[in-house]
Amino acid sequence: MSDTEIEALLAPLRAAVKEQGDLVRKLKSEKAPDVDIQKAVAELKHRKQALEAKELALSPKDDFDRAKLEDLLKQKFFFDQSFSIYGGVNGLYDFGPMGCAVKANLIQFWRNFFVLEEQMLEVDCSVLTPETVLKASGHVERFQDHMVKDLKNGACFRADHLVEGFFEKVLSDKKVAAAKKDEIRQILPRIEGMTKEELGELIRKYEMKSPVTGNDVSDPMEFNLMFGTSIGPTGQIKGFLRPETAQGIFVNFKRLLQFNQGKLPFAAAQIGNAFRNEISPRSGLLRVREFTMAEIEHFCDPELKSTHPKFDTVADLELTLYSACNQMDGKAPEKKKINDAVREKLIANETLGYFMGRIYLFMVKSGIDPKRLRFRQHMSNEMAHYAKDCWDAECKTSYGWVECVGCADRSCYDLTQHTKATGVKLVAERKLAEAISLFVHCVPNMKLMGKAFKREAKDVSTHISGLSTEDIESLENSLKENGEFSVDVNGKSFTLKSDMLEIKRYPKTVHVEEIMPSVIEPSFGVGRVMYSIFEHSFKTREGDEQRTYLSLPAMIAPYKCSVLPLSTNAELQPFVKQLSMALTKCDISHKVDDSGGSIGRRYARTDQLAVPYGMTVDFDTLKTPHSATLRDRDSMKQIRAPIDELPEIVRDLSNGRRTWNDVINNYPIFEQQEN
Amino acid sequence: MSDTEIEALLAPLRAAVKEQGDLVRKLKSEKAPDVDIQKAVAELKHRKQALEAKELALSPKDDFDRAKLEDLLKQKFFFDQSFSIYGGVNGLYDFGPMGCAVKANLIQFWRNFFVLEEQMLEVDCSVLTPETVLKASGHVERFQDHMVKDLKNGACFRADHLVEGFFEKVLSDKKVAAAKKDEIRQILPRIEGMTKEELGELIRKYEMKSPVTGNDVSDPMEFNLMFGTSIGPTGQIKGFLRPETAQGIFVNFKRLLQFNQGKLPFAAAQIGNAFRNEISPRSGLLRVREFTMAEIEHFCDPELKSTHPKFDTVADLELTLYSACNQMDGKAPEKKKINDAVREKLIANETLGYFMGRIYLFMVKSGIDPKRLRFRQHMSNEMAHYAKDCWDAECKTSYGWVECVGCADRSCYDLTQHTKATGVKLVAERKLAEAISLFVHCVPNMKLMGKAFKREAKDVSTHISGLSTEDIESLENSLKENGEFSVDVNGKSFTLKSDMLEIKRYPKTVHVEEIMPSVIEPSFGVGRVMYSIFEHSFKTREGDEQRTYLSLPAMIAPYKCSVLPLSTNAELQPFVKQLSMALTKCDISHKVDDSGGSIGRRYARTDQLAVPYGMTVDFDTLKTPHSATLRDRDSMKQIRAPIDELPEIVRDLSNGRRTWNDVINNYPIFEQQEN
Repeated sequence: MSDTEIEALLAPLRAAVKEQGDLVRKLKSEKAPDVDIQKAVAELKHRKQALEAKELALSPKDDFDRAKLEDLLKQKFFFDQSFSIYGGVNGLYDFGPMGCAVKANLIQFWRNFFVLEEQMLEVDCSVLTPETVLKASGHVERFQDHMVKDLKNGACFRADHLVEGFFEKVLSDKKVAAAKKDEIRQILPRIEGMTKEELGELIRKYEMKSPVTGNDVSDPMEFNLMFGTSIGPTGQIKGFLRPETAQGIFVNFKRLLQFNQGKLPFAAAQIGNAFRNEISPRSGLLRVREFTMAEIEHFCDPELKSTHPKFDTVADLELTLYSACNQMDGKAPEKKKINDAVREKLIANETLGYFMGRIYLFMVKSGIDPKRLRFRQHMSNEMAHYAKDCWDAECKTSYGWVECVGCADRSCYDLTQHTKATGVKLVAERKLAEAISLFVHCVPNMKLMGKAFKREAKDVSTHISGLSTEDIESLENSLKENGEFSVDVNGKSFTLKSDMLEIKRYPKTVHVEEIMPSVIEPSFGVGRVMYSIFEHSFKTREGDEQRTYLSLPAMIAPYKCSVLPLSTNAELQPFVKQLSMALTKCDISHKVDDSGGSIGRRYARTDQLAVPYGMTVDFDTLKTPHSATLRDRDSMKQIRAPIDELPEIVRDLSNGRRTWNDVINNYPIFEQQEN
Repeated sequence: MSDTEIEALLAPLRAAVKEQGDLVRKLKSEKAPDVDIQKAVAELKHRKQALEAKELALSPKDDFDRAKLEDLLKQKFFFDQSFSIYGGVNGLYDFGPMGCAVKANLIQFWRNFFVLEEQMLEVDCSVLTPETVLKASGHVERFQDHMVKDLKNGACFRADHLVEGFFEKVLSDKKVAAAKKDEIRQILPRIEGMTKEELGELIRKYEMKSPVTGNDVSDPMEFNLMFGTSIGPTGQIKGFLRPETAQGIFVNFKRLLQFNQGKLPFAAAQIGNAFRNEISPRSGLLRVREFTMAEIEHFCDPELKSTHPKFDTVADLELTLYSACNQMDGKAPEKKKINDAVREKLIANETLGYFMGRIYLFMVKSGIDPKRLRFRQHMSNEMAHYAKDCWDAECKTSYGWVECVGCADRSCYDLTQHTKATGVKLVAERKLAEAISLFVHCVPNMKLMGKAFKREAKDVSTHISGLSTEDIESLENSLKENGEFSVDVNGKSFTLKSDMLEIKRYPKTVHVEEIMPSVIEPSFGVGRVMYSIFEHSFKTREGDEQRTYLSLPAMIAPYKCSVLPLSTNAELQPFVKQLSMALTKCDISHKVDDSGGSIGRRYARTDQLAVPYGMTVDFDTLKTPHSATLRDRDSMKQIRAPIDELPEIVRDLSNGRRTWNDVINNYPIFEQQEN
């Protein structure tokens, strides 16, 4: 089908999205009631999904066969389900030697590409996290799903999925009356925003059952996606396994700022495991219960994030951008230079643009196909209320477009939350050009406070004494209007009366002011990136459908090199051993395959393990000067080189200091049939 | 004090240990009742502890000051308590940029030294582990402590610690009568082996209170050291955070064996976090609730572990061995070549000896002082019943001798346990020299089984059909003797009667037999190794007590190099930038310090961060050919070299391909006062 024909089929769907997008804009500009906006947004989302599904269905079929890839990944133990001999646990995977090496290489590359290049401060924080921390960050409240249980076998379903699935089945049923279908079409777009009670009402009204067993289901209940546990023997410290690594960075902000000699900007980074108790894990590595993240928090002066000193290095990169605006208009993503997108204010600022460029470069160097990589902007309704702008790097896979990296401008939300919860000011200092002269200070009346708050009076007064000018002003207003003001200290609320404190104003020379830094957060899902790389690098040899292989970049490949004797002849063995030892000395991971199979079969086997280069010791190796052949996995071309030089050639090829083209131009080509 | 004087003071303690050790031997040889042996062993342990405490007290004082080291590690954010702004959680630590880099470097070195060198199969398995797995491995039962609670404030104590502490206080009280002290001395050695009831009785009898508040305490209760959680929304899968990484390897044994083309021996390795809910965490990084382990499981044919092909490479290494025998005799550890220890059967086999040698080399290269490293053999009473031999690599620190690495011959315990629990045979094949001709096979009677076991009959019959010759024989005996036999399938027990199966014997040619591999397990506590390295590398500059530094090996150091302009003069800046960029290109972590302080102060600061090499750009740098100085942290000597060559010199020094001596012999010495 030609592009024009495809566009003709998509046109009505695009129009439907635009119509609804315009309605949402109109309602917002008219400041319509929230409930109406939400309803319109839900319908918009629904139409967008229909458009995207159609686009994917119409996009040219590659010959990708997921079953074949999965078979390869399982057979060669890249990864597989955990605890299979015990029946397995959904959403948990073990990485075998090949997957573990790919993961370690990807992480090492990430560390060099981001941490080393930008001199980021890498930290390694606890997985176990007390509830108080995750309450402040909003996770205890936000990480909720509604769930229903099969009343007979206890199986669980997400309530919204159950309702949607039920309705979609009804809509596709020819026997159902049109009036009833219309009714359902009215409800469908509203499901996502529904409360637990509303979902329960629908389930009862339409008598929905378990889609698997047909049994009755329970009323929806709230379910927190975090894994709970208790820390310490008393059970007093309720805790969770962290659902992301970022909070570990925020709670260490003061130490990190001090490590950076008090100066902004700086970035901190963390690579580590996070845990989410998904109700129904699925899609292999894409939705799991335990996963590795690599997160960066770039802290900067909010007034200075519009510029970034290294922006020039990415300004001319052309990214596929799927703006919120285009999404609302039913339009396709567009290619745009980062510089242009920032100038047009499509990307909020240079700092965000810089990181999007770095993410793009990292992904492509890791083996992601740039044609299957796009940046999708969050629409205002998707974005957390505190975020200023957010773009997801999405990879196209056989599961659709998958969010692999998020890149958000989180403003100062997290630091503010932890400051509020602890009373510890997570701020930096900004030099002032001119000295401010009016200083506002809150002086507690300890006698009255002591009477009112007893042992906690000291904590309350410390908190009061440390309030910012802004906070003091709002306190002053509240006292004027209501005669009281409440503050939260140590997780408790205290009510202050006018006589408990005095607000003093006096001139003072100040050279710095405190600012709450802004945070730009690039956040990588390592497993999702890995899986996308596997799909994008899964290839079939031309003319032989059975010969599949993985064209992973050498830097990411589990083994950099294979060492193969042409036959089992004993004379070849010493050279195999010599090469293997030389490779070990250069820290180059490699695989010796001296099993008896034909050389072609052994090449095919190493191709499946993504081994980018193969050394073969043959009978010409016995002649002096000793030499062996070197084969490139992707082109299958071979050269012949002295065996002393081979390990270093492979080392330089693997770390990107040399290209295969360069090698092929400097050594004699070796011609041989593989089969 | 001279060595002779020290030995004179230790002699009575040594004699006391030997006396008790001889008693234990005698009781064992006489096959005395278990309870008597246990009592004698507990007293032996007590005497050993007294000897060790005295030895440590008498050993020559180094000028090590733990408070100073802790201050440095905290100030420079190597690590610090997690969630401090929330009041902190005991036993949880966050690694800051310096600690995180040291940890990552240590792990990377471990990977190169073990995984790459031995072509081990590295895996990365789930932290979340279902209870069934940890029941089979014995952890649910074994990881128990007895705990008492302060009845008023809920604080918890280990019951044995509480009782011991109470008794020791009584013994040191001059007012207590001798008779009562004697009574307590009788009880003291038995405490460790006591049941919860016995401990409770003591607490009540002596009216013991909380040592902190003086409040009453509860009866002792059992407390599992693993963190529990539930996996999935239904709460049906009870799980724990893994208390060690090893089980992930064992449950993947079949896949790993297949990956290794069915051949033994092979080793698998895993680096990852493990969790133990310590009742009272203490001693900084040494006893924590969340920690990183690096574990190896070397699987081999039990008949072949007496030899190891690479044994020669470590045979002549001299280790400090503290044998079980010397421990019972009250003797000191002895230096011995690994080869001699294996020949004398002190170390059980070459394979175990090989790994002990590799552990030694790894530790010393990582920065452990060989004089403060010993291998202590487990005494038979300490060792798990299934272990054949076990040696702990212990490092001497200010906390005493600390177990950092365990190295155990676990025989086939773990694979046997998981085989029993799952019915999945975790075995390998051994080629037979001669074909065995008698084959025993168990044929289930499906009709009777179906009647008895209904839907589960199929699983039971599959299990029965797969029984080993040995298992069939024991089944046959049981049927003869009792008329029935019970098997565990899918975690349930089934009772088989004689008529439910037929045992057939027939000749068959067999070329392989199934064997359960033996496992040698080197297991590293990464945090403990790190902390020991910090203590061993903490130094003070001669003549200046205030100038402390860390002499970490370059490979482990967080930054490999500093780049310092001699002054803030703008002309020096471009060269600083040029060097920094060249270092980044070589993937060399480094720190630019262009703050205004004197060069001596800045060197002192980088010394505290363990930076091994420092480049200084001075006014001679401005002359062509451009050059800069390079300083060695440990000797404080400097050379001058062209700036083009400096990054590669540092790279080669950092990865051990070049020594400082070599550098100093090839470049002109640069003389300058640091202060």
